[in-house]
Amino acid sequence: MTEPRVAIVMGSDSDLEIMREAANALAGFGITYEMEITSAHRAPERTASYARHAVERGIRIIIAGAGGAAHLAGVIAAHTILPVIGVPIPSTSLNGLDSLLATVQMPAGIPVATVAIGKAGATNAAILALQILAVGDPELVAKLDAHKEKLARGVEEKARQLKQGG
Amino acid sequence: MTEPRVAIVMGSDSDLEIMREAANALAGFGITYEMEITSAHRAPERTASYARHAVERGIRIIIAGAGGAAHLAGVIAAHTILPVIGVPIPSTSLNGLDSLLATVQMPAGIPVATVAIGKAGATNAAILALQILAVGDPELVAKLDAHKEKLARGVEEKARQLKQGG
Amino acid sequence: MTEPRVAIVMGSDSDLEIMREAANALAGFGITYEMEITSAHRAPERTASYARHAVERGIRIIIAGAGGAAHLAGVIAAHTILPVIGVPIPSTSLNGLDSLLATVQMPAGIPVATVAIGKAGATNAAILALQILAVGDPELVAKLDAHKEKLARGVEEKARQLKQGG
Amino acid sequence: MTEPRVAIVMGSDSDLEIMREAANALAGFGITYEMEITSAHRAPERTASYARHAVERGIRIIIAGAGGAAHLAGVIAAHTILPVIGVPIPSTSLNGLDSLLATVQMPAGIPVATVAIGKAGATNAAILALQILAVGDPELVAKLDAHKEKLARGVEEKARQLKQGG
Amino acid sequence: MTEPRVAIVMGSDSDLEIMREAANALAGFGITYEMEITSAHRAPERTASYARHAVERGIRIIIAGAGGAAHLAGVIAAHTILPVIGVPIPSTSLNGLDSLLATVQMPAGIPVATVAIGKAGATNAAILALQILAVGDPELVAKLDAHKEKLARGVEEKARQLKQGG
Amino acid sequence: MTEPRVAIVMGSDSDLEIMREAANALAGFGITYEMEITSAHRAPERTASYARHAVERGIRIIIAGAGGAAHLAGVIAAHTILPVIGVPIPSTSLNGLDSLLATVQMPAGIPVATVAIGKAGATNAAILALQILAVGDPELVAKLDAHKEKLARGVEEKARQLKQGG
Amino acid sequence: MTEPRVAIVMGSDSDLEIMREAANALAGFGITYEMEITSAHRAPERTASYARHAVERGIRIIIAGAGGAAHLAGVIAAHTILPVIGVPIPSTSLNGLDSLLATVQMPAGIPVATVAIGKAGATNAAILALQILAVGDPELVAKLDAHKEKLARGVEEKARQLKQGG
Amino acid sequence: MTEPRVAIVMGSDSDLEIMREAANALAGFGITYEMEITSAHRAPERTASYARHAVERGIRIIIAGAGGAAHLAGVIAAHTILPVIGVPIPSTSLNGLDSLLATVQMPAGIPVATVAIGKAGATNAAILALQILAVGDPELVAKLDAHKEKLARGVEEKARQLKQGG
Repeated sequence: MTEPRVAIVMGSDSDLEIMREAANALAGFGITYEMEITSAHRAPERTASYARHAVERGIRIIIAGAGGAAHLAGVIAAHTILPVIGVPIPSTSLNGLDSLLATVQMPAGIPVATVAIGKAGATNAAILALQILAVGDPELVAKLDAHKEKLARGVEEKARQLKQGG
Repeated sequence: MTEPRVAIVMGSDSDLEIMREAANALAGFGITYEMEITSAHRAPERTASYARHAVERGIRIIIAGAGGAAHLAGVIAAHTILPVIGVPIPSTSLNGLDSLLATVQMPAGIPVATVAIGKAGATNAAILALQILAVGDPELVAKLDAHKEKLARGVEEKARQLKQGG
Repeated sequence: MTEPRVAIVMGSDSDLEIMREAANALAGFGITYEMEITSAHRAPERTASYARHAVERGIRIIIAGAGGAAHLAGVIAAHTILPVIGVPIPSTSLNGLDSLLATVQMPAGIPVATVAIGKAGATNAAILALQILAVGDPELVAKLDAHKEKLARGVEEKARQLKQGG
Repeated sequence: MTEPRVAIVMGSDSDLEIMREAANALAGFGITYEMEITSAHRAPERTASYARHAVERGIRIIIAGAGGAAHLAGVIAAHTILPVIGVPIPSTSLNGLDSLLATVQMPAGIPVATVAIGKAGATNAAILALQILAVGDPELVAKLDAHKEKLARGVEEKARQLKQGG
Repeated sequence: MTEPRVAIVMGSDSDLEIMREAANALAGFGITYEMEITSAHRAPERTASYARHAVERGIRIIIAGAGGAAHLAGVIAAHTILPVIGVPIPSTSLNGLDSLLATVQMPAGIPVATVAIGKAGATNAAILALQILAVGDPELVAKLDAHKEKLARGVEEKARQLKQGG
Repeated sequence: MTEPRVAIVMGSDSDLEIMREAANALAGFGITYEMEITSAHRAPERTASYARHAVERGIRIIIAGAGGAAHLAGVIAAHTILPVIGVPIPSTSLNGLDSLLATVQMPAGIPVATVAIGKAGATNAAILALQILAVGDPELVAKLDAHKEKLARGVEEKARQLKQGG
Repeated sequence: MTEPRVAIVMGSDSDLEIMREAANALAGFGITYEMEITSAHRAPERTASYARHAVERGIRIIIAGAGGAAHLAGVIAAHTILPVIGVPIPSTSLNGLDSLLATVQMPAGIPVATVAIGKAGATNAAILALQILAVGDPELVAKLDAHKEKLARGVEEKARQLKQGG
Repeated sequence: MTEPRVAIVMGSDSDLEIMREAANALAGFGITYEMEITSAHRAPERTASYARHAVERGIRIIIAGAGGAAHLAGVIAAHTILPVIGVPIPSTSLNGLDSLLATVQMPAGIPVATVAIGKAGATNAAILALQILAVGDPELVAKLDAHKEKLARGVEEKARQLKQGG
């Protein structure tokens, strides 16, 4: 019951600050998750093994964050049939343009569901994971409805503050 | 039973050549789908209405392709809790860089699962849709396993041809 | 008489620092305006409603600022016949290149009058609004003439200071 | 009564193919216009003179298209108080990215209302001109309403064709 | 004696036209090579196995060409201690900028020796392979000297033709 | 005798920090210069007048620095037959890519001799001005020879320091 | 008397089509020139020797065109005190963005006077050369005046044709 | 025995902070090296001489780091048959995109083995040098095996820390 349904994987502990946004968002939705550090380049066998065994361990979705020549999401996607969500991390001097292109421009056959560069992307990876889980689990739909309402109310609240402050 | 589970939406019939790749791939997987033309800019109410009612019509995933200031996927995502997959179309002189950024760089709260620019992306949108459906429908896993095997066999076959031709 | 003729809309209160430049410039010209926070993605119905009713409330021009996959100006333009001026906000690691392309590359049929990224653009949005109002309101021409003279005098003054300081 | 209200200016006759889209769209709306070739670089005095006298000749809006280091719109904007709409032309090997940046990134004080690169931008320049004229001329609002309806009907018609063809 | 010392690997037979440049250049230098098709994404285990066993089969250098989110060189480098030369293939609408960044921006620890995009890069991969082999095999130095002389003579010959033709 | 031979022009006093590099380098070479602030957009007539009368005032070369949609060098070049050197200033969020393209991509007929973005470019503008003056004034050649020697000695000195420190 | 005053240098005969624009423009101005093929990479000593001896052979200005990692102009500039004009050639899949950056972004100390990418740049290199020669040779000023007049008349002629054709 | 086998060359002492990463990595592997400052532009003859004599001094590999129009690696490669590894330095406002393109886009005939921009690239240049030396020196293979193991263990250690901290 508390076994993780979503895995959040990153290539380095320096990505942790950004990827915690995904963890926090999942926790807020009550979705169990695990966090893992593994590297497509420095620990390729560990990464392949992790990706290949995720499905049998009950993981339903893998969120992978990486920077630069960001191969982590693509390598995981190569080794699993689970949906893989890629979060480009802006860790080099090119500000994430490299990570974005290395994550999103996958060849036909192996998709990576890519979200925005950085923290907004990490948060959205969690929401996308919830949306994916909700496709097969109608009980989660209420959480998504609540999320949407909260977003809309947040906008209204900020608009009200602006007018009061103006 | 034959009601579509995936919607393929595009902004213009000029996007049809690319988006047919998604349709063909879904058909190959035996996933029912519908195709729709609607525009975030030229038909905003139609688009909002389509997005809002998709879930009640049984649609589980929406694939949206658009070019230039590609807002279609984002606008649909704003109006639905379903997972939305964005396919950037290279329809302007900037070769899809504009479509990619306009699709993927969504703000925190509303994700679009973005795939590669053009035909590879359209094919991958279909595979991603199958992966998402399979999260809640274990019967589809066999199709994904078969897909992965077919990809691997295709590589082996091409490698064999190369050696025979060499 | 004091009802606002220009609306300044932004997607988030984090855009306020930049969009205040537009407000300050309009105030300097004596043009009444209102400021509003609404989001194309987080509050799409509010945004559509705002855009659709702007004209009947007496708004003549809408200035919209947004960052990232900056859809706000385009979505508003889809719902109104008023001229919409888009201000790309540099709110992501891509420094506004994403916002610029997502704002300016609109498809044929729905224009967004795009200005420069950031504060210069916000100021210019206000001047453009004044120019647009002046097309139908000759009394405003004097303000534009004064603005041009002030710009030229400012250059002369800075040139004089440079020579005195040199 | 038939004196042109909109000027369409371009730097070279090689820009004519693209800028005719603006002319055709204006003609379709029944807006009188004139077309002019003048160059910010090769004929700077002619350009300055044209810009300075446009307002007294009854021109209300200037649409300027140029490629490369596209200064035409900016130079005209420097010499007039009229709204200036810039159309970036993709005439160099950089596909219009240079024209876009040279047109849109104007300094605070002198806006250029920039539209999309190429033909879509030229068409939208005409629609934006109509929107601007309509701010001060309510009789034009009906044309904009009709334009919007036509766009929406066009989308519906294409959607119908897609379904019949599918 | 005729066992290949260099491996030329590519992700797809569509990369063959470009990668043949590497093969032809190696053949011209009398360096034995093998060509292989394997994909980091579609055949990840085959790729890992190929990379891990290359060294024991006598391969000294691996040249890997791939396009888009070009992971092939990086994945191979993760699985071998051999020098890996990456050739970015311009196979998407982004003209190889994506392939270049996905190949070159490797994290600290796992280098890929990246050469130019496309055919020039494929040719240079072969020359770089020869240079690397020559570090440990002085007999190859003469071939590099001859190559340099041939390049210089080629320039002189073209200069002479230009003068005779002028 | 002390009348300025080189003009250093900039669009705003905010460019002064960068353009002083040009002034300092010219002073170091003993070349007389003047500094001027004028804006292609905010003071177009002043700019045109300045450019048109420069030659008769004895100016031989104009160095122009500007940022964003950097038209200053191009506009000056349009109004004079003197060589114009353009220094792109990185004054917007795009880090000078906009200024570079707006300065260098001039149409056939009106060149701008463009140098690097920012301070290195400003220094080089001064050296280029000296090189240009030296074409017609052999006495200046010695200064260029001395400059080249100083550069080479500077490298040697830094290399020596590195070795002593290592 | 007929000894060349301008050298046009290029890295390869494939650059000849573009660089002939410079030759034709110089010929049209009556400026003697020579054309040379030499490569910074394939014939570095020849290039260095050519650059070092140009001044003593009476060359006053060197125009250098190259593509990709375009080092030719920079290398020549390193070896001579003459003004060097760089023409970026769009010879790779990156359309000249690489050539432009490799030509223009020179470090402080060694300028390259960079012009536009491709044919417009080659033509402008010739005009810039004429402008530079005219700094020290007042007889050439008349040619520049004539050139400017011809440009302006060309614009007028095209404008007249447009009106007659319209 | 202690004569350097690898040369680390940079254009300026301002590149030292980044290039020390290469030195430290080589030292960690027990590979002898020398560091040198020389500039392709400011000291071209020194650079050519250094490159031409490196091989006879026992240098086996040259690592060259430079920024902007980064010609150093290419110029060295033109003068030697040794493998040259290029490290793009992010020293201008373009964040290393210029250095990367100027380093990697070499023409057919003269390769530069390019690694990532900045410190990661400098470290990887050292590892690549070790890989190249190991091709001809089997005793070094153990160091590469140890390096790979250390990378993998580092990932495992960070993963363990993450779990303990979580």
